Amino acid sequence: MSLSSHPPEAGGRRSVRVELGERSYEILIGAGLLQGTGAEMARRLPCARALVVADETVAPLHAPALLASLERAGISAALHQVPAGETTKRFSELERLVDRTIAERLERGDALVALGGGVVGDLTGFAAGVVRRGMHLVQVPTSLLAQVDSSVGGKTGINSPRGKNLIGVFHQPSLVVADTAVLETLSEREFRAGYAEVAKYGLIDRPDFFGWLEANWRAVFAGPGRAEAVAVSCQAKADVVAGDERETGARALLNLGHTFGHALESAAAYDPARLVHGEAVSIGMALAHRFSTRLGLCPASETERAVRHLQAVGLPTAIREIPGPAFLADELMNKIAQDKKVQRGSLTFILTRGIGQAFVARDVEPAAVAGFLAEEITAGPA
Amino acid sequence: MSLSSHPPEAGGRRSVRVELGERSYEILIGAGLLQGTGAEMARRLPCARALVVADETVAPLHAPALLASLERAGISAALHQVPAGETTKRFSELERLVDRTIAERLERGDALVALGGGVVGDLTGFAAGVVRRGMHLVQVPTSLLAQVDSSVGGKTGINSPRGKNLIGVFHQPSLVVADTAVLETLSEREFRAGYAEVAKYGLIDRPDFFGWLEANWRAVFAGPGRAEAVAVSCQAKADVVAGDERETGARALLNLGHTFGHALESAAAYDPARLVHGEAVSIGMALAHRFSTRLGLCPASETERAVRHLQAVGLPTAIREIPGPAFLADELMNKIAQDKKVQRGSLTFILTRGIGQAFVARDVEPAAVAGFLAEEITAGPA
Ligand SMILES: NC(=O)c1ccc[n+]([C@@H]2O[C@H](COP(=O)([O-])OP(=O)(O)OC[C@H]3O[C@@H](n4cnc5c(N)ncnc54)[C@H](O)[C@@H]3O)[C@@H](O)[C@H]2O)c1
Ligand SMILES: NC(=O)c1ccc[n+]([C@@H]2O[C@H](COP(=O)([O-])OP(=O)(O)OC[C@H]3O[C@@H](n4cnc5c(N)ncnc54)[C@H](O)[C@@H]3O)[C@@H](O)[C@H]2O)c1
Ligand SMILES: [Zn+2]
Ligand SMILES: [Zn+2]
Repeated sequence: MSLSSHPPEAGGRRSVRVELGERSYEILIGAGLLQGTGAEMARRLPCARALVVADETVAPLHAPALLASLERAGISAALHQVPAGETTKRFSELERLVDRTIAERLERGDALVALGGGVVGDLTGFAAGVVRRGMHLVQVPTSLLAQVDSSVGGKTGINSPRGKNLIGVFHQPSLVVADTAVLETLSEREFRAGYAEVAKYGLIDRPDFFGWLEANWRAVFAGPGRAEAVAVSCQAKADVVAGDERETGARALLNLGHTFGHALESAAAYDPARLVHGEAVSIGMALAHRFSTRLGLCPASETERAVRHLQAVGLPTAIREIPGPAFLADELMNKIAQDKKVQRGSLTFILTRGIGQAFVARDVEPAAVAGFLAEEITAGPA
Repeated sequence: MSLSSHPPEAGGRRSVRVELGERSYEILIGAGLLQGTGAEMARRLPCARALVVADETVAPLHAPALLASLERAGISAALHQVPAGETTKRFSELERLVDRTIAERLERGDALVALGGGVVGDLTGFAAGVVRRGMHLVQVPTSLLAQVDSSVGGKTGINSPRGKNLIGVFHQPSLVVADTAVLETLSEREFRAGYAEVAKYGLIDRPDFFGWLEANWRAVFAGPGRAEAVAVSCQAKADVVAGDERETGARALLNLGHTFGHALESAAAYDPARLVHGEAVSIGMALAHRFSTRLGLCPASETERAVRHLQAVGLPTAIREIPGPAFLADELMNKIAQDKKVQRGSLTFILTRGIGQAFVARDVEPAAVAGFLAEEITAGPA
């Protein structure tokens, strides 16, 4: 069964187009595409030079193949290495990358290439957005999360000591190359965390895709089902982005599970030993479903089905599964109130009426959320 | 005689609209407008809070009146002070301002207010473009240069150690308030330097305006002619910006005098004791005219007329007028080649066929420029 509107071309390669007028671009998906990245760039961009950005984990694994591919295509390329981890999304690393880009004499037609997970993608995208007020950006996502989420849509940025992703620009890539084979070197935990975002697209508005995932998730984890899952996810994100490039409306649905999830990540001080982003999103989606059921919006059977699938792939679905000290409902409520999506005090949540039926709920009662969280923490599933 | 398409309203106030679809905005021009800034913001923006940014020179002079005006309009406001001078356009000041903006809990609907010259405007605009991926920006320009040029058009940014204005974003203001009375506290040298940009609009494509300036420049310097000169200049810039928001084409004409001017500024190490930007532009415009005449493009009488007016207001028009060590033609040529407007080795210049007849010339012979500069340095007017 093929769910993506763009079935595989010869060689199993797929392509999804993000329609944004003159800022439209292609997402290429398939195993082994890394080696062809230079040629794909040369076909599309004036690009004579490129600066490849990768973290210290990904650089030794995949940068040599990418650099060789660029050289073969006649693009002179250098490598800029950054530390691994979320703290790389900071001003000092932005400045270092911007300086390097200018020092390499990249002109406006040249490209910054983000080879890595969402951290490298967000940092590199921001730099590409501000050097000479906008240079070409090519995303070569290497984590599942980056392939299905962060590399598509043009949101870029760094963190402030006062909150995540508070500083950045919208800057669309010129091309995204998602090589599903590079995921082989990703840890199982990171792969699984990225899968939470894949499942999210099914839960938002693609019930057929969710059913396909229930039947085929083992093939997604093992390899053969990967390109299909990535392609459908990219198509889902591309559809939302095309309708709402700058997140003023429909794009909010992509935050299913994220209001709760961000509060948990923040309360856990972004300590990856306790929780990584996809795990927080998995718990957040389970909470959004249970909260919707509690409000009488979503049948209990639908919530059970959503939670059962997340558990089947090994993702956490309850606050009490997070290792370490217990959370406080008050603390989580404070985090939720600080969330940047909060407008003038009223709470906006993504709730659901069932699998594939998420919606934006405004004016959710803070007291109802607080009561629900207190119960989850003390008596919820563990 | 009134040249601006928007003659004064009651109270002598004028307004120019920058047409950019949903990013359109108003430039209000007149004496005493500072006191009404809060009310004008309250009429247009959701704005509950504002952060006013000013340098240490302008803050004591004009921030109290602006802060009072915001408070009267029910906008709670704080002041962020930065050092005066070009070096404030740097990463560390950007980070400090971004942090302050987030610390003040400004939400997306709130505004950053740039009270100052082009330095404060460029830095504040950049910060407004990146906090939460875009906040409201209100420009309250206090130098003549900022009123007629930098506050309009959405170019924002900071400098790299490797070149000026290389880092930034396009971020249009929501409102520009140009109070011509605040120019009273500006030094005569800075006022005169800003006047070079006013004359530039006449020289580019407004010969009538140039004629008006020849007749009325004393009134512009003294006060009564100021609002008219600022309004026509803003209209000229607004027209160009509306046709080419992101500087891919026609906007290049605004660089009349700037290729030579930037090279001189850079060779003088941006030392304001030797040269400030408007003075460099004045010399650059004189050079562009003389070079055009030498190439047989512009009648000598037109060049003489342009130069005569710049000299009449006290602006420099020759390289040899710059105090300090002599310049080298080779050094200037290197600076010109490094200029960010250079595309793949070919030189693009703004040349002219006469007063108000500037045009973009591509593929200018580098050897012709070098020969011309060598002559200007050794034998040109002094
Ligand atoms: N811009 C957006 O729209 C958007 C959307 C979602 C998330 N994000 C951001 O993305 C970031 C999270 O992304 P992430 O989960 O990819 O984090 P990440 O970039 O830190 O990658 C996770 C870890 O996996 C390693 N890694 C990546 N690819 C690998 C590979 N092929 N082999 C071996 N190791 C590999 C990395 O070195 C890192 O240690 C967060 O900062 C989040 O805010 C952005
Ligand atoms: N964004 C654009 O489109 C654009 C266009 C042109 C220039 N610029 C930038 O603008 C900057 C130059 O602007 P500028 O000439 O206004 O420089 P500036 O901001 O440094 O101001 C010049 C000096 O005048 C002082 N000053 C300003 N207003 C005053 C007042 N009312 N009373 C007393 N003192 C006052 C300032 O403190 C400063 O010392 C440069 O950085 C240039 O790159 C930007
Ligand atoms: Zn996410
Ligand atoms: Zn200028």
